[in-house]
Amino acid sequence: MTGPLISFLTDFGLRDPSAAIMRGVVLDIVPDARIVDISHEVRKFAIRDAGVGTARLPIAIATGRADVLIGPDNGLLVGAAARLGGIRAVHVLEAEAYRLPVVSTSFHGRDIFAPAAAHLARGIAVAELGRVLDPALLVPSPIAEAEVRAGELRSSVVYVDTFGNVKLAGLRADLEAALGRLHAGDPLALSIGDRRIDTSWQATFGDVAPGETLVYEDSYRRICLAASQASAAAIHGIVDDLEVIIRRA
Amino acid sequence: MTGPLISFLTDFGLRDPSAAIMRGVVLDIVPDARIVDISHEVRKFAIRDAGVGTARLPIAIATGRADVLIGPDNGLLVGAAARLGGIRAVHVLEAEAYRLPVVSTSFHGRDIFAPAAAHLARGIAVAELGRVLDPALLVPSPIAEAEVRAGELRSSVVYVDTFGNVKLAGLRADLEAALGRLHAGDPLALSIGDRRIDTSWQATFGDVAPGETLVYEDSYRRICLAASQASAAAIHGIVDDLEVIIRRA
Amino acid sequence: MTGPLISFLTDFGLRDPSAAIMRGVVLDIVPDARIVDISHEVRKFAIRDAGVGTARLPIAIATGRADVLIGPDNGLLVGAAARLGGIRAVHVLEAEAYRLPVVSTSFHGRDIFAPAAAHLARGIAVAELGRVLDPALLVPSPIAEAEVRAGELRSSVVYVDTFGNVKLAGLRADLEAALGRLHAGDPLALSIGDRRIDTSWQATFGDVAPGETLVYEDSYRRICLAASQASAAAIHGIVDDLEVIIRRA
Repeated sequence: MTGPLISFLTDFGLRDPSAAIMRGVVLDIVPDARIVDISHEVRKFAIRDAGVGTARLPIAIATGRADVLIGPDNGLLVGAAARLGGIRAVHVLEAEAYRLPVVSTSFHGRDIFAPAAAHLARGIAVAELGRVLDPALLVPSPIAEAEVRAGELRSSVVYVDTFGNVKLAGLRADLEAALGRLHAGDPLALSIGDRRIDTSWQATFGDVAPGETLVYEDSYRRICLAASQASAAAIHGIVDDLEVIIRRA
Repeated sequence: MTGPLISFLTDFGLRDPSAAIMRGVVLDIVPDARIVDISHEVRKFAIRDAGVGTARLPIAIATGRADVLIGPDNGLLVGAAARLGGIRAVHVLEAEAYRLPVVSTSFHGRDIFAPAAAHLARGIAVAELGRVLDPALLVPSPIAEAEVRAGELRSSVVYVDTFGNVKLAGLRADLEAALGRLHAGDPLALSIGDRRIDTSWQATFGDVAPGETLVYEDSYRRICLAASQASAAAIHGIVDDLEVIIRRA
Repeated sequence: MTGPLISFLTDFGLRDPSAAIMRGVVLDIVPDARIVDISHEVRKFAIRDAGVGTARLPIAIATGRADVLIGPDNGLLVGAAARLGGIRAVHVLEAEAYRLPVVSTSFHGRDIFAPAAAHLARGIAVAELGRVLDPALLVPSPIAEAEVRAGELRSSVVYVDTFGNVKLAGLRADLEAALGRLHAGDPLALSIGDRRIDTSWQATFGDVAPGETLVYEDSYRRICLAASQASAAAIHGIVDDLEVIIRRA
């Protein structure tokens, strides 16, 4: 028998001991938990703005796929739940039995979120964590959706990964709904602010020369602006949240 | 049954394979060990100065709480032991049976410390690691203690975390011993070198406007200079080890 | 009983979720796998150039020591196999049963390599992964070997570690084959491009003054240019792949 699986996603970084402390809290409650660190490098002061140390409620969202998402009510869990079968129930993390004995004002990951995750993994029901909350009252997801228009897709930069690949809002299906069926080599023009990037739709990096940009369907089935053997974000000075309009060139 | 718990704290970073190699050494000796990486981002050439490759003894400190702390005799283990019930016994890591067969001059983490930790986790007694050492002979902790004076606390910067929060020597109780009982909103003045920072005592980040600084009791019960949604260290150019004097404003 | 051991070495970094996703794929197939992250900080666009998204075959190399190395045929596995008892057999990762159901063009770590490693760990034979490949057809290792000449060793920079230690091609035995037996304090001259670095052979860091450089046998038995309590790479502006000629001074 292997232990339950818990994953962490935070903006704590790996220099501070915070992630290890959360791991310690979980292992203290569920000694055989298997913990996967998704990332501790979420951009600081972005999510956190709406996070701990302010009035956001600590919540658990049970999803259609039977995951439980735990964290502050800052919109991010809502966006994740939408990909996991939708929201089945929301509970406020207020049961003292499933928090650490002392709850600090600034480290809810240790004092509220890690214990809640561990007790769930140990087998308690999500309803035991606290009162039900109406999903309609949750902070909405801050991540913009792509908008299909005639001849253009209105998208935005969701995330620039560490290779400089620019993850855009929308799927290939959205882009084809706007522009018609795409074939490798089709020329595309991206408008980002007052810049225009001339590029093409491709199957993969190797289909263009080194340093050249392409738009392709990434491994998460999202549309992505990338460059072969180079950082598209660095070449074009692209950062998170910028609006991007994609048309045929 | 779950395996024993071993945690690592080093300045190896995560780009080099050193931390993984230590993990491999431990798992070779204790296959079911649960290993927690506290951090591998201790500032380089700070601790290491007094570390490996020089004449520091490799030691194990058994603490009052029954932890065993393993590493070079550079003062850091002494400071940690003080928080864990004090020093119960110190042994020099010299037993060849509990080292790797070849001990390099520059990677004692792999050759001496990881095997010692693993053999202890496996069940050997700390006394088997080597001869007893008089705790009075250990290098003292390099971390300054706060000093309570009439109307001021003489503190210093212990650690700047990755959010730019400035962890100061001393607890809330120390600050109140110097300044009297503190209430949210009490104005404070910090002197750091010839700079003066006007700020206030607060319960948490959300109690001041974004970008404003505060002094609060952090989640480790230490006093901390921080800023709401910003880096206090960056705003004020603060680095480790600076002296800080805190008075009422 | 403890689970099988799988280690990861990638250029994915730890900010993106890629490493965690590979971990999830492995744990889905082998719930009790013990996973060791060697590093996810391999220099980007170095290995990847010859990696995924181009025509490189995904392969498994069974080694003389009974490890199986999995990844793209970019020369790196060949170099590693040479240190692990040589190549026993090479197979192409083409069996659909041991890939994820959909294989993307850009995330073979998730879709091909992690599942292959997990299925091997679960007990399948390497031959089940796909057809045999002639080792003579593999891309050769890109890492240069040291060359012993009369009175000089022609080496190169293999890796600059996070302390700024400069790992050079060649072992102490190679250097002694070129220069005769080495004793602590022997003066050496390194030529790197048109720079000359005057230094000495030493046993360890502590044998020279802080800031001074030395050449020593590192903990992997390779020759290494380092500085005491400082970064030799920063002092001398050294980067990967530079040629280095070592002579007696």
